Amino acid sequence: MIKVTVLYGHPTDPAAFESYYSSSHMPLVGKISGISKAEVTKFLPGPDGSKPEYYRMAELWFDTPAAMQEALGSPEGKATTDDLANFASGGVKMLVGEVG
Amino acid sequence: MIKVTVLYGHPTDPAAFESYYSSSHMPLVGKISGISKAEVTKFLPGPDGSKPEYYRMAELWFDTPAAMQEALGSPEGKATTDDLANFASGGVKMLVGEVG
Repeated sequence: MIKVTVLYGHPTDPAAFESYYSSSHMPLVGKISGISKAEVTKFLPGPDGSKPEYYRMAELWFDTPAAMQEALGSPEGKATTDDLANFASGGVKMLVGEVG
Repeated sequence: MIKVTVLYGHPTDPAAFESYYSSSHMPLVGKISGISKAEVTKFLPGPDGSKPEYYRMAELWFDTPAAMQEALGSPEGKATTDDLANFASGGVKMLVGEVG
């Protein structure tokens, strides 16, 4: 399997991020065909209350590299990545990796 | 669910890292009780051949925060985190997050 990992930096306005993320961005992700599994993670402060390195992580699993390329290259995939600029005020790191 | 995400920086000697990771570190992880699911990811170069931000990622899912704390605080959990110093020459970022 192959996985796309998106690491979000801390946004300038977390409440605005959360609102846009759930009401606008996630529905765009839901329109992408070929995603085998998706998971979102919201990071917590450290045991000492320290700010985590990243704000959120999103992961998209695909059965094959070809399936990933087709999904990300589709109009729905491009609309999703283009949408990052609308809310990811803390920056985004996107990584592709082999699972296992 | 709650998840521990470990992001490994690029090691000084990737071959030595890989060897130690599979033969020594992963068996230590396997001794920890209470892990619901585990997954390891090896990041790939970008489409332009660029080095990914991190070398590897490991994720451990737990049913509850209490299960996570018990697992990481156990002798086997401590042995695993102590072992990071033996091979993670590119540094490690460890994050805890809520899934979903």
